[in-house]
Parts: sequence; C-alpha cells; structure tokens
Amino acid sequence: MALLSPSRRLRRTPFSDGVEAAGVKAYTVYNHMLLPTVFRSVQEDYHHLKQAVQVWDVACERQIELRGPDAGRLVQLMTPRDLRSMLPGQCFYLPIVDETGGMLNDPVAVKLAEDRWWISIADSDLLYWVKGLAYGYRLDVLVDEPDVSPLAVQGPRSDDLMAAVFGDQVRDIRFFRFAHLDFQGHDLVVARSGYSKQGGFEIYVEGEQIGMPLWNALMEAGQSMDVRAGCPNLIERIEGGLLSYGNDMTDDNTPHECGLGKFCNTQTAIGCIGRDALLRVAKEGPVKQIRAIQIDGPAVPGCDRWWPLKHGEKTVGRVSSAAWSPDFQTNVAIGMVRMTHWDAGTELTVETIDGPRQALVHETFWA
Amino acid sequence: MALLSPSRRLRRTPFSDGVEAAGVKAYTVYNHMLLPTVFRSVQEDYHHLKQAVQVWDVACERQIELRGPDAGRLVQLMTPRDLRSMLPGQCFYLPIVDETGGMLNDPVAVKLAEDRWWISIADSDLLYWVKGLAYGYRLDVLVDEPDVSPLAVQGPRSDDLMAAVFGDQVRDIRFFRFAHLDFQGHDLVVARSGYSKQGGFEIYVEGEQIGMPLWNALMEAGQSMDVRAGCPNLIERIEGGLLSYGNDMTDDNTPHECGLGKFCNTQTAIGCIGRDALLRVAKEGPVKQIRAIQIDGPAVPGCDRWWPLKHGEKTVGRVSSAAWSPDFQTNVAIGMVRMTHWDAGTELTVETIDGPRQALVHETFWA
Repeated sequence: MALLSPSRRLRRTPFSDGVEAAGVKAYTVYNHMLLPTVFRSVQEDYHHLKQAVQVWDVACERQIELRGPDAGRLVQLMTPRDLRSMLPGQCFYLPIVDETGGMLNDPVAVKLAEDRWWISIADSDLLYWVKGLAYGYRLDVLVDEPDVSPLAVQGPRSDDLMAAVFGDQVRDIRFFRFAHLDFQGHDLVVARSGYSKQGGFEIYVEGEQIGMPLWNALMEAGQSMDVRAGCPNLIERIEGGLLSYGNDMTDDNTPHECGLGKFCNTQTAIGCIGRDALLRVAKEGPVKQIRAIQIDGPAVPGCDRWWPLKHGEKTVGRVSSAAWSPDFQTNVAIGMVRMTHWDAGTELTVETIDGPRQALVHETFWA
Repeated sequence: MALLSPSRRLRRTPFSDGVEAAGVKAYTVYNHMLLPTVFRSVQEDYHHLKQAVQVWDVACERQIELRGPDAGRLVQLMTPRDLRSMLPGQCFYLPIVDETGGMLNDPVAVKLAEDRWWISIADSDLLYWVKGLAYGYRLDVLVDEPDVSPLAVQGPRSDDLMAAVFGDQVRDIRFFRFAHLDFQGHDLVVARSGYSKQGGFEIYVEGEQIGMPLWNALMEAGQSMDVRAGCPNLIERIEGGLLSYGNDMTDDNTPHECGLGKFCNTQTAIGCIGRDALLRVAKEGPVKQIRAIQIDGPAVPGCDRWWPLKHGEKTVGRVSSAAWSPDFQTNVAIGMVRMTHWDAGTELTVETIDGPRQALVHETFWA
C-alpha cells in the first residue's frame, strides 16, 4: 500500500484525535474527508466487530440539510422512493437518481420535521446536485452542509454501550428510527442504523465541541465490554451485501441494477426526476444486476479496479469488491452480472489482477 | 503518514501502471481518483521539476463535457468571468460560483467549438452542479464526464521533450491556447498550461488505449533530458501562489477573497448566477484575502488543517498550505488574512500543530 499525503483538503473530523490515539493504520478518503479503514488488521477488526462493540468515526457521512416549505418536494424530486408515508422521526434509505435514472448517491435521509431534512450521503458531492436543482427550480428551500459528524457504535454489544452513556431509552429506538437524546447538555439525534449487519447506532454530532468528549465517554463506558475504535469493515460489509457507491455502483447504474428495486415506487413517486427513465426498467426489470459472488482459492488480492467476470471468452459482468472471509472460509465478493448468467449456481471465471479464478453466483449474501 | 487503502472507488488512471513502475511513494485522492504526490521525496522532486522535465499523471483533472446550443450559456451561468471574447482554441481559468458568490470549483475551461466545451475541474463534483442547472433551467445541452485523462509535461525542458514526441509545432502553442496534434494516429488536444510555474503542456488523452504508449513515448524520448515521473509539487506550487481548491479556498469564499478578482467581470458577466451577490464585493473589495505568508524557523510540519493566524490574542486569518522552501530558505505558505492585517510586512503569529511561529505577510508569492 502507498502512503496518503496529508493536506487540509482531506478534512479531519471532530474524532480524528481519538482515531489517531487508537492507532489507525490506514485511511480512505470519502467526501473529501478521512475515513479510517484499518486499526489492527482488517481481519482482526472484523472478528472484533462481530463479537464486541466498536466506535466508528464516520463523520465523512456528511449531511445535506434542507430547510423550508419546499424541502420535502425537493427530496421527492431526487428519488423514486415514494416519501408520502414517511414521518418525522424516520430514516429512509434513498436511491438518488438523475434524469436518466442513473444513481448519483445512496444516502440515508433523516426526516427531522416536515420542513427540515438531513441527507446523510455516500461518496459524491450530492450537495451540488441538490443546490443546482433548488436554484434551477426556484424552490423555497435552504440547502447547505451543516457541521454535523456522525459517530457510529456498531457490534452486538452496541445497546449495552449506548445505554451506559445515554440511558436505557436507547434500547427503545427501533430500526431506522431516531430519538433526541441528551449528552452533557447537548441534544443529539441518535438513530438505530449503521453500515454493518451487527446492529448499532449512529449519533449525529453537531459542531466540533463535543466530538472528543463523546468519543472518550463511549470508550470509558465500554471498557468492560471490550470496546475498540473501529471502522466500516470490508469483509463484513461484503458478507452482508452492503453496497458501496463508487465501488459497486456508479451513475451508470439504475437502482434496479443495484438490487434496490424494493426502495423504488416508480409508479407513485410523482415528481421524481428520473421517473420517466425508470418506468420501463421498473416494469421489465434490469438486464444486469448486483449478485453475491463466491471466488474459489486462497485469499484474493485487493480489488482496486473492476475485475471482469467471464463465461468462456464472453464478459458477462464484473466484480467490484472482494475479500477473504474467515468465517465462511471462502472469498466473498460483490459483482454485477448480466441476466443471461446471473442465476444462482452459475459458474464463471473472474479475472483478478493476479490471474483467473473460478467463481460462482451465490444465492444470497452471507450474513 | 498513514497508508491509503486501495479500492475501486479511488479510481486508477490510464497512467497508473507507469506511475507504479516509477516508484510512486504517496498519493492523495482528487475527484475520486489517485493523484501521486511523492516519487523520490517532495524536496528531490521539487529540485528536479525546476531543472529538468517531468511527466505528471493528472488524469484526476476530470473533464465535464458540454455539448449543444446552450453550452456557452450554461458556462456563463456559472462564472463571473465574461466569456464573450473567448474563442475556440482558448483555455480560460474560471472561478465557478453559486448564487451566493461562493466558489464551487476553479477549473480551466477549454472551448473546443462554439457548442462544445471541456471543463477541467479541481476537486469537487462540479458535474452535479452543471447537471442540476442544465436540468432545472431545461437547457438544450448534454452534460457528462467523458473518458478524458490529462497528462502533463512540466519543467523548463518541456518544449524540447514535447517537440521530440509531437514535432516542433508544439513550440508554437501559446500560453493557455491549444492545438490538435497527432500521436500514433490519435488526434489529441495539447494545451500550453499546467499546475506549475515551470512551463509546460497538458495533453488531453481520450480513452484508455493510448495512455501507456504515450507515457512510454515521453519517457523514452526524454532519456537524454533527465525526464522523470513527477506530480504537482507542494513546495513549488506554494512558491508560485497556485491555489488549491479545498485547501486554500472553499465554497465559503468569493473569488475576490481568493485574489481572483482579475478573472471576474461581474458587471458584464450577464447571466452569471452569482452576479447579484458579487456586485458589492466586486466594487468595494473583500474584507479578507489570500496572501503569501512567510513563516520563520525550521521546516514546518505538514499543514493538514487550517492554522490560525493571530495578532496578539486576536485571530485575523488562517494558513492553509505551508512547506519549507529549499530555494528561498524559509517556510513559504498560503493564508487568508483580514484586511486589518493583510498589508505586506505585517508581523503575525501562526499556530502550527507544533506550536506558535513568527510569520510575516509577504509582498508577493516567491516565483
């Protein structure tokens, strides 16, 4: 691995001091911000995440705040998910599409009130799209990036750790709901959500001031629970089929190709910019789609580019994320496969950077 | 320095194989793409850039292509620079602003024809702003990111190296003009431009196919000229006062604060979205502005966050980029200073992460 040159452009977070003190070994860059990727090792972090509890600096999940009478209309403009049933207090995972139905981002939207939303974004400057639309449509809405930095608590012991800091009321927060909880006199949005399948919470920390006090309070309260600094884990997220924008999908892909059809109500999402483009694919289905891919042999190298999936001489897809899974004792991967070869059990060849490997379309993701 | 975890999301370029073979030591991430930052060392790369010639993988300067009858109108919507005098064959450095006059990017626009432009962007997804405006205004223009990857040749011997590969006609290309030149049967846009003060060219390479053949041809032709793989150099760009979007300025700043008033014709740039917001600042001037800052003492640490500039107890600005300059035997820096303290010769204190240092507002940049 090469080194990452520090600069102000790769923004630090309110939790960076804690991350460094915990011995972070590697980063990625996400929304122009540092996102830790490794503390002890990807495998060691993986085992710990599945057994205990971790605190994650995911400040890079930047927020776009929409305020004003047209806020709800603007969110509906951007997504084929029908938002009419969404209540304040709910979080919705939203495919965001352009006028061609291509994915621009896949955020979690937090509806704070009828006229106030946070959109917690994946790695693209969705702010520019939202501002461009708001201005072009002359909507009555304020759009900006507030200074809000999510801190995630993930792992099977998340409820216990959060209860130790915020009280037992956190246990009552349902999946993809949020509550306002107090920490040292600050009112914080706390949602049951996060980028793992191990359960947990995301705390929306406003401003710089209480970042490290909150980090330290969680670390202290969690000593008996073996709490550690952690981060989204490559192996665990592939096992769980959690997609990564920019890796597994780009603006070339429709939500349906990404297996996100269940988050699309294209018929009823009146106002959605991509609706016309998506109506046909919503009815007939896509011709290629995300699949779980099992890759034979020893641990694959790092997947830093798309690996072609072949059937004989014919390219029928690509692998975009891959890692050795200690728990399943195979290489787990995420790929996009053409419909002619996407049935479970189809045997394919994947061309890794270290040469070809046998691969199999797996029925489901692993966890 | 921490490591950078590879993933497909941090895109490789058509020249990555050459960069790796040349022994790249560190990267940054720029427009979701790998940008080399160090080959031998920042200082060794610096001396070499000023004496010889380097080939730079700047594929991360992604292009936004605008095609159609409204292309020119859309570019003028985004910038306070008056584009009426711009001819096909010219490159213009353009501050891009939102409706509040805040900088969204500072690209070089390449006018290929009246109805066809490339915008060669700095580090933000300007594509989303352009697409949002085009859609919101219902403009008759196609907007996308074509597969075009700039390769730069920079340094005092650039003309000789380029002439060896493209013929002597490259010597006739004037500053910020471009020509169409042939390489192995491919028609390439070659501009006299680049992110250094040492002179040179940027070659707009379309597609993947000829990336490495062109890289190799330059390396081979340049053997007698001591050609090396290089990259934008932190020290050299600070000496030359070349700003970096995300480091030295953000969407909080107007072009005038960035010292880019000479690229603004706010009165006559009819149609520019930020015009109303910028008229007053264009007339009266900004209250803070980019300045060259000299920092006393030995080499400063890496500037990975804004360092406050103080006068006594009062914060009067910030330093955003800083490095030790071997040629000027001082620390050179770029800062933003309030008008009360921006006069040349003003003595300030800068709070680096290693403690306070004496600093001076320098009359000009160094090169």
